[in-house]
Amino acid sequence: MSNLRVPFSSDERRGIYRAIYERRDVRSHFLPTPVPDQVLGRILDAAHHAPSVGFMQPWDFIIIQDESVRRAVYVNFERSNQQAAAIYQGEKRVLYNSLKLAGIVEAPVNLCVTCDHQRRKGSGLGRQSDSATDLYSTVCAVQNLWLAARAESLGVGWVSILDTHSLKEVLGIPARFTVVAYLCVGFVSEFLLEPELEIKGWEHRESLARLIHFDRWGAQDENRAAALIGSLRERSTAAK
Amino acid sequence: MSNLRVPFSSDERRGIYRAIYERRDVRSHFLPTPVPDQVLGRILDAAHHAPSVGFMQPWDFIIIQDESVRRAVYVNFERSNQQAAAIYQGEKRVLYNSLKLAGIVEAPVNLCVTCDHQRRKGSGLGRQSDSATDLYSTVCAVQNLWLAARAESLGVGWVSILDTHSLKEVLGIPARFTVVAYLCVGFVSEFLLEPELEIKGWEHRESLARLIHFDRWGAQDENRAAALIGSLRERSTAAK
Repeated sequence: MSNLRVPFSSDERRGIYRAIYERRDVRSHFLPTPVPDQVLGRILDAAHHAPSVGFMQPWDFIIIQDESVRRAVYVNFERSNQQAAAIYQGEKRVLYNSLKLAGIVEAPVNLCVTCDHQRRKGSGLGRQSDSATDLYSTVCAVQNLWLAARAESLGVGWVSILDTHSLKEVLGIPARFTVVAYLCVGFVSEFLLEPELEIKGWEHRESLARLIHFDRWGAQDENRAAALIGSLRERSTAAK
Repeated sequence: MSNLRVPFSSDERRGIYRAIYERRDVRSHFLPTPVPDQVLGRILDAAHHAPSVGFMQPWDFIIIQDESVRRAVYVNFERSNQQAAAIYQGEKRVLYNSLKLAGIVEAPVNLCVTCDHQRRKGSGLGRQSDSATDLYSTVCAVQNLWLAARAESLGVGWVSILDTHSLKEVLGIPARFTVVAYLCVGFVSEFLLEPELEIKGWEHRESLARLIHFDRWGAQDENRAAALIGSLRERSTAAK
């Protein structure tokens, strides 16, 4: 590998910011186009190079292309989604029911990402203060994969509405593993300009300035936040 | 924003893979050089554009530059680290004690990233099946920030060895929030060629092929895995 101190070129830097700003949680726009093995290999290797506590690498990846397995997972999703809808009333219920929340069958590839709490790699370094750190490492792997996928023009959707106990039965995952993510992956007809939940009126983006504190919780400072956020003109430049 | 269907150029795509492969968990190589506000703003905005369950955006960011606060956090780390060391014996203990595991005081910026389980944004969408999804969203924000930082030539180190109860007291964080990450951020003298824990002999990288299953857990297939992994010559090309 070459010298790691070589600064990123402006194009390379734009690539990162494009992936971050143009990444979407895709549910509605999957195409049946097959995903080439080498592309799948690249995004999995990106996941595998995520940071992990103590270099534990607690993840496993199940690549699900068999349609009968995806259909079984979809049945699980449908059941969980009907239960989830029941907490909403009136207009919010109508809006919820109008949302497409998973592309399990349409996406040609599904990926299940698990965390092994008992993996011995890393010898427990960094895991004594917070037992969730192995789960966090696994999420870092998912986010690496998601951004690499975006650069490959692949859409990814994270399906949170699944009964994980039943999902583990369908996929034969041993009890000690936690299912962290179930992802739908495929090429897409489009990447929406803004998150689908924003376009559909479910939720809007929070102002970053409201989420920044200086030195201690609650110490918020409009002028200082503005100095940070004023620079974000670069965001739209980066995204172009 | 421009059309999101524009494919990534090869330079832009290389930018993503460089950030993923050249990202390090930095503890030893921080420089005192100040981090410009606009750069800090860009990496925080990258975090803020992470995926979140139901578009909940459950994160807050505390930017810690005050040295007295960083010193108080360092005292917490030292205490936690002494406790952590006690589980190792013999050579492993010697090796553990030789590792530098945090750059809290050396790094000019520390960032504490929290998760608000009660944030009403998102109206609970996607949170009924798995109560950890808001934590996972917050980790996605951390990983976005980490990769953007790499493209800005900023090192980031995630400090897992902290008593989070005492950390919340030091920073005044209300009880209902979970501290997900405590990060050290700064320019660096170098980015190591491989993870520091690998170079120091603490742990080595697992083979990706051993972590891939096809369609169901345990269905591992050397030929198919080789077809995926054979393509990874692109990794070293991408990293150059």
